[in-house]
Amino acid sequence: MSQSLDLLVLGNAIVDLIAHAEEDFLVKQGVTKGAMQLVDEPRAENLFEVMGPATVVSGGSGANTAVGAALLGAKTGFVGKVHEDELGRLFSHDLKATGVRFDVPPATEGPTTARCFILVTPDGERTMNTYLGACQGLSPDDVDEATVRSARVTYLEGYLWDPPAAKDAFRKAVKVAHSAGNAVALTLSDAFCVGRYREEFLELIRNGSIDILFANIGELQSLYQTDDPDAAVAALREERGGQGTHLLGLVTRSSQGALVVRGGEVRAVDAFPVREVIDTTGAGDLFAAGFLAGYTRGIDYVSSARLGALAAAEVIEHIGARPQRDLLALAREHKLI
Amino acid sequence: MSQSLDLLVLGNAIVDLIAHAEEDFLVKQGVTKGAMQLVDEPRAENLFEVMGPATVVSGGSGANTAVGAALLGAKTGFVGKVHEDELGRLFSHDLKATGVRFDVPPATEGPTTARCFILVTPDGERTMNTYLGACQGLSPDDVDEATVRSARVTYLEGYLWDPPAAKDAFRKAVKVAHSAGNAVALTLSDAFCVGRYREEFLELIRNGSIDILFANIGELQSLYQTDDPDAAVAALREERGGQGTHLLGLVTRSSQGALVVRGGEVRAVDAFPVREVIDTTGAGDLFAAGFLAGYTRGIDYVSSARLGALAAAEVIEHIGARPQRDLLALAREHKLI
Repeated sequence: MSQSLDLLVLGNAIVDLIAHAEEDFLVKQGVTKGAMQLVDEPRAENLFEVMGPATVVSGGSGANTAVGAALLGAKTGFVGKVHEDELGRLFSHDLKATGVRFDVPPATEGPTTARCFILVTPDGERTMNTYLGACQGLSPDDVDEATVRSARVTYLEGYLWDPPAAKDAFRKAVKVAHSAGNAVALTLSDAFCVGRYREEFLELIRNGSIDILFANIGELQSLYQTDDPDAAVAALREERGGQGTHLLGLVTRSSQGALVVRGGEVRAVDAFPVREVIDTTGAGDLFAAGFLAGYTRGIDYVSSARLGALAAAEVIEHIGARPQRDLLALAREHKLI
Repeated sequence: MSQSLDLLVLGNAIVDLIAHAEEDFLVKQGVTKGAMQLVDEPRAENLFEVMGPATVVSGGSGANTAVGAALLGAKTGFVGKVHEDELGRLFSHDLKATGVRFDVPPATEGPTTARCFILVTPDGERTMNTYLGACQGLSPDDVDEATVRSARVTYLEGYLWDPPAAKDAFRKAVKVAHSAGNAVALTLSDAFCVGRYREEFLELIRNGSIDILFANIGELQSLYQTDDPDAAVAALREERGGQGTHLLGLVTRSSQGALVVRGGEVRAVDAFPVREVIDTTGAGDLFAAGFLAGYTRGIDYVSSARLGALAAAEVIEHIGARPQRDLLALAREHKLI
């Protein structure tokens, strides 16, 4: 993987098992609607037993972003850990079939490939239960320095803070990327994930580890511990204000579109209309994909954010977080590429 | 499984791997568009390598019918063989989660669970490549006599003629069902499947093994070796004309709806309008599901065929051959149940 990349993504390599569920099923199972919760193997088994018929699609927040960016023409690589089993094979196949380079060897020992049991309620909202499995084997050794140096942007999932060794892989990637003069992006992943690692994420932002930050408004409120969305955006606007190294912030707000926050300025971008909200899984991941595909092409921030909004709209209209339509054709239709 | 059933389905237990493909990909791979072809393991591996990102959904023609009928309120059981592996577990889970009884033990030796690589072209047409795997282990021992006796209708897939031992399971089920005074239904499955077993299928129809026959117009033309659809319907109308034991024939004709053929009469039933044809996989299976759910409830043939047309329309509008909407609610909306 020595050829230069636009984007290198580090993330948890997860296969999604998606099932429809009624609201009262979530209550009965004691899961928090709209959140991602970590589950152990027995709990994963039990959830599978009681949930409805499943559709299996490769997922993982960062991997969804990698696929979206590749489909929009960005040269993209992925770093994450699967096990050598059926689901791991499916995950690798799906990445490569969309043109994402992925050459981290699968684990031959230890737990099976990670799976996320996604319960989609009639309103299209998804509730995620993740068994991390093989992801926990991701280590700094899986991060190839030459590859990181070759990538214009290295993008990191906040969820990587969950498997302990992955955190070290994350830190290594930041160091190598910055020593090569490349940008580092982070997605806060989930309001509850922010709740678990709030201090560490703030530290990464404030010590300059992060150049581009992706967050939805709930995650940003969790980061700044405020009930007021405007106060959260204001706090982000002030980050590193006096240091010269501006933070670029992208804040998504569901149907209200997104905000581009930089150098004390906030610009709003509209959401794209959606025919019917079927499953919101991956909307944030695809926003990041679209933005980064635009950004690494040298398109301005606001147009890049429009591209993000377009990619997000596509995955909301069907089950699963991987695009089903030709994103590049769609982007051309809207004159964004 | 001793409680009485409305419907018992015998079929190949298959997991579908569905990918989008362009027309020229089919040409390059040398596969016949619209058909089901059997592939061996190396060919299956190779197809998986070169095809696009896959969505995994439980399938199998007969199993799709079982699920559809159960969702429409019919007490349904399924007989088919999976291996004790991840895909086999997914298949079993999906059947049970929709209320289908399934207690054939998985194979612990021999080939892995069957998979069908389905290539969906931009026109929504599906081309299927099936690796039969564990299905080939289905034997007469898997057919429980008490269960067959308890079922009002035993429904058989024509595809069962492919794995050699399954044919014996099929014959045992016919014998037991008829000795208990129950009806036996058969679907011709596929024009190419009819091409492989034409004489045997005609023999089953003519010796009275089959009471209800499902076929699409292409399969019927293949059965009667004619280019003329009307001639094929006419030939079906004359089957067993003088024997008193009328054959009930259901002939589907895509957007032209279906025909109910019985006792020398032919009645036409319209198709339901479809918003957008996304993937026609399972349309015939769901037609049979709707018809049999109506039939075993004691609804007249024409209304049962309407119910079949409604169920077929639902699966055409999305990827995969298993319903995603609440079929029973849909049927009630249209005052068919």
